[in-house]
Amino acid sequence: MRDAINGYIDEHLDDYIDELSELLKIPTVSAQKRGIPETVEMVKAMLEKRGLTVQIYETAGNPVVVGRGSGKSDKTLMYYNHYDVQPAEPLELWTSPPFEPTIRDGKLYARGAGDDKGEFVSRLAALDAVLAANDGELPCNVIFVVEGEEEIGSPNLAPFVIDNADELACDACIWEFGGVDDKGHPTGYLGLRGALMVELFVKTMSQDAHSGNAHALPNAAWRLVRVLSSLKDEEEHILIEGFYDGIMTPSELDKELFEKLPDTESVVKERYDLKHFLNNLSGEGLKEAVFNPTCNIQGITTGYQAPGGKTVIPADASVKIDFRLVPGQSVDDIEQKLRAHLEKHGFGDVEVVRHGGIAPFKQDADNPFIQLVIDTAEEAFGKEMMIDPLIGGSGPIALFGETLDIPIGFAGVNYPDGKFHAPDENVVIDIFAMGCKHNAYILNRFAEA
Amino acid sequence: MRDAINGYIDEHLDDYIDELSELLKIPTVSAQKRGIPETVEMVKAMLEKRGLTVQIYETAGNPVVVGRGSGKSDKTLMYYNHYDVQPAEPLELWTSPPFEPTIRDGKLYARGAGDDKGEFVSRLAALDAVLAANDGELPCNVIFVVEGEEEIGSPNLAPFVIDNADELACDACIWEFGGVDDKGHPTGYLGLRGALMVELFVKTMSQDAHSGNAHALPNAAWRLVRVLSSLKDEEEHILIEGFYDGIMTPSELDKELFEKLPDTESVVKERYDLKHFLNNLSGEGLKEAVFNPTCNIQGITTGYQAPGGKTVIPADASVKIDFRLVPGQSVDDIEQKLRAHLEKHGFGDVEVVRHGGIAPFKQDADNPFIQLVIDTAEEAFGKEMMIDPLIGGSGPIALFGETLDIPIGFAGVNYPDGKFHAPDENVVIDIFAMGCKHNAYILNRFAEA
Repeated sequence: MRDAINGYIDEHLDDYIDELSELLKIPTVSAQKRGIPETVEMVKAMLEKRGLTVQIYETAGNPVVVGRGSGKSDKTLMYYNHYDVQPAEPLELWTSPPFEPTIRDGKLYARGAGDDKGEFVSRLAALDAVLAANDGELPCNVIFVVEGEEEIGSPNLAPFVIDNADELACDACIWEFGGVDDKGHPTGYLGLRGALMVELFVKTMSQDAHSGNAHALPNAAWRLVRVLSSLKDEEEHILIEGFYDGIMTPSELDKELFEKLPDTESVVKERYDLKHFLNNLSGEGLKEAVFNPTCNIQGITTGYQAPGGKTVIPADASVKIDFRLVPGQSVDDIEQKLRAHLEKHGFGDVEVVRHGGIAPFKQDADNPFIQLVIDTAEEAFGKEMMIDPLIGGSGPIALFGETLDIPIGFAGVNYPDGKFHAPDENVVIDIFAMGCKHNAYILNRFAEA
Repeated sequence: MRDAINGYIDEHLDDYIDELSELLKIPTVSAQKRGIPETVEMVKAMLEKRGLTVQIYETAGNPVVVGRGSGKSDKTLMYYNHYDVQPAEPLELWTSPPFEPTIRDGKLYARGAGDDKGEFVSRLAALDAVLAANDGELPCNVIFVVEGEEEIGSPNLAPFVIDNADELACDACIWEFGGVDDKGHPTGYLGLRGALMVELFVKTMSQDAHSGNAHALPNAAWRLVRVLSSLKDEEEHILIEGFYDGIMTPSELDKELFEKLPDTESVVKERYDLKHFLNNLSGEGLKEAVFNPTCNIQGITTGYQAPGGKTVIPADASVKIDFRLVPGQSVDDIEQKLRAHLEKHGFGDVEVVRHGGIAPFKQDADNPFIQLVIDTAEEAFGKEMMIDPLIGGSGPIALFGETLDIPIGFAGVNYPDGKFHAPDENVVIDIFAMGCKHNAYILNRFAEA
């Protein structure tokens, strides 16, 4: 079966590069509201070409294209992808124009080649290969969910998933991206931290005052400093009551996976010109520290910021904060605890505005679907899959993983020099082929997993 | 003698309003580099008309006009004024054009009518009246120092005074402004706080990083919060070692003067919508708190400040601070102590940039010259002079008071609705006349003080 799949992919590889190139010619830049209807049409046609039934879900923003296909088993595998791309600017830094797909040195260059049109097409190729290897019948059901706002933060994805949770019911999901690391190892993830983004507003007076009155009038910037000081101590320990309640710690298996991950310590130190990491973290401790939730200041706005000085007492001050949450924490609970903390410490007047919330997500490496993804990755790429137990960042992955209660696997076509979001975005065609095969192996064996 | 002076001023009042109006027709806006040479010429001519010897001191900016006259006594009285004015914008808010002096309801309206051309002319009127009352001979020497950059912060005044301290030697100085309060009481000041303006720069990395790494990478904003927390406690007590060493506290006489000052507590509370002042200050405690030096945050700049959030760890953070200094403190000493504090608390990497320094200045109310100013004020205005022992703000007054080691008195023509720096700036002609008389009384009796 592997031979049939490999043969099919190798034989038709040029066709998929052509099909991908057609899709890449449309500048589907969601941030610039370009190319959306044409792309929706083309994605729909591409799914229908594979015999899938396509439904367009309108949202408050760009539509979500959903394609469904039935198979032998009653198990269902979902693919989450997006048809929109990042803006191509600065255009002058592209070697060939971003929306004129060009092959050089075995790589296909275009905006979206890797993120995410290339990933989407690799899954269609996998579907074709599996259909061909199974006499035109899918071994399981599939659902393709292709949204059009990922590059602007998926503002309408949550209501779409929540409102249509029944129709989206499935047994597992392949995430929108995947690929290999510097050494050619396929990479996967067991989870992402969540995030609570808030802005705190302090107001001490109705207007700014002259700083000659600083002995008598309350300064909002100083009050903000005190609010912030109450939130975290000098060892980075967050002082909000109950903040760490019930948090997950790395399991023995997580620790083993961390150990296998390449050591990036010196690279990161050099990139940021660091003498040492926070709290002198290093080695395994540094890797495992991603299990610590954080309270990060994104920015502070208060008072006079132009050159020189201005003798002013600011009446207003604000801070943008993101709390990165680990499994065991919830966005709403942490926001509530933050509010209770402010109240308790005499800062009940501080206004709290939530700018966003993403739940943390973590799955076990010994989940059978994850094991299937890991096993087939090694078959497709010829190297062991490196699994990161938890990524420090956040994403809408919990939206699927939690809402639909499914494991989520990574199987993709990208590599570290793929220049996501940058000029000269590209995929290596050989890696693209391996990603197609990986996806096909998973689909082919999913019914048994 | 008082009658002769009064008679002279009353008789020639219209002439002085005319002379002032001619000066007001020139738009001497230093911030806009307008009208400087013409004004210098006119000021020179006005001084020479009184028989003074005029010297133009070139500076790195606008020239300083100095006029000298000899008198019977070898004592010398200085007048410090400035010939530049604030910009007149917004022009549409003026009832009559700012550089077309207009009399309405007993007030002369024009940019500079009060600040400071009106003050300057009132002193020329005083000089004329004293000359007339003394058969054309001055009872003492006079020096007029008329600079042209006060409205842009007197950036070149310090080198001028310091370099020419010998030539500027004198026994006392009448400051550039003075006048009456809401109830018609003439007002004076015994001192101003000094100021040290600094900016602190924190850098933790060579570039911003994604906040998914906040468990490992150092955040400059958080480090700045810790730097600031180390500087002051929650009761506004400044924690820099030796910060309060040798500071002056209000004398018994100062306390008596504070008691006489009108109570502005409820007005200020209403203006800034305050529930209470810092540390619940009120009454005499609030007035006397101006003797507390301060550490004021003018503004903080760090990270992302546009709408919404951005998942960034700022690599840079900075804060602008002004320390208001009281008599007994010095700018250089406090800067040194700040640097030592940062070093001692592990913040030796924080860059400190000084944006400015002004020494504090305080004189005793029982100084004979100050007593002369106080006594003659009551004679001229018919009401007791209100003396503020120390103003919370800062100014170049110490530059004269300290460098030349002289007392500084206030005798002027302004009133609370004079709209300094605003549209419809004006002087009340009756108050102008009283200010002329006050200045004449001082000059007339200065030799004996």
